[in-house]
Amino acid sequence: MRMSEGVEWALHACIALDWIGDRPVPTAKLASTFELPAPYLNKHLQALARAGIVSSTPGPRGGFRLARELRQITLLDVVTAIEGTEDAFRCQEIRQRGVGAQAPKSAFRKRCAIAAAMRTAEVAWRRALEAQTLADVRDAAALDAPQAAANVRRWHTTNKEN
Amino acid sequence: MRMSEGVEWALHACIALDWIGDRPVPTAKLASTFELPAPYLNKHLQALARAGIVSSTPGPRGGFRLARELRQITLLDVVTAIEGTEDAFRCQEIRQRGVGAQAPKSAFRKRCAIAAAMRTAEVAWRRALEAQTLADVRDAAALDAPQAAANVRRWHTTNKEN
Repeated sequence: MRMSEGVEWALHACIALDWIGDRPVPTAKLASTFELPAPYLNKHLQALARAGIVSSTPGPRGGFRLARELRQITLLDVVTAIEGTEDAFRCQEIRQRGVGAQAPKSAFRKRCAIAAAMRTAEVAWRRALEAQTLADVRDAAALDAPQAAANVRRWHTTNKEN
Repeated sequence: MRMSEGVEWALHACIALDWIGDRPVPTAKLASTFELPAPYLNKHLQALARAGIVSSTPGPRGGFRLARELRQITLLDVVTAIEGTEDAFRCQEIRQRGVGAQAPKSAFRKRCAIAAAMRTAEVAWRRALEAQTLADVRDAAALDAPQAAANVRRWHTTNKEN
């Protein structure tokens, strides 16, 4: 099971947008920050916009900016914006097939015990994603790589032709 | 992000093998319990065998049986047998590309803060999977559908021609 690489791109894009400051950043410029293919990054930025995480300004001087502060964006917000809200484990009710087809419908009123157990783990994962904001991640990154924010900001103010 | 349906099949297969009892069950017979395609189920049973969860007996009266008791098999054992051990989020180190390529290598000694945060959630998920055994799931199923075990067992002893 593999998460879309769009989640990684979207998380880096949000933190870069915070570092760059409150102005619209064109997709191509944002993509070049990490040497990402702009059309694919754009697809993910559109998904973030639909989720209200970034906002889009049209026009030649347009682009994307954060729609709210990083402390108001959780990892779960970004993961569900890119991956959707469906659980990774999707019960196909195979208990109702074969031998199960002969049982009365009342035997299946409650969620399948296997699906319920898998759901417990999914909830633990989602809670752990929800407990962390992008501000937490930005602050942790600042401890490990104190120059990263300034480097990205400088690159975005001095490489205007990109 | 979607988990392989093989995880659901494998979990149901393990619990059915427990219900049927300690004797080898041919793949085709086990597959027919849930109307699953035998070749695909066989692929997943082989993965469970490689993980030491089931054992395989060759020959015309052969098949699969549990290699250990359900209380010694966790959800995590089955998920990793089918899905592998890699995290769903796989850091591509995009922080080292573009602007990051100009930073000294020492800036990247520690794990990327984004990957570390995603790892925290993955660990929470794996712990929740590890905290539940297939015996827990079987016991929960017995409460919800007390006839299921007997139905599967009867079907496997009376439909020998299948």
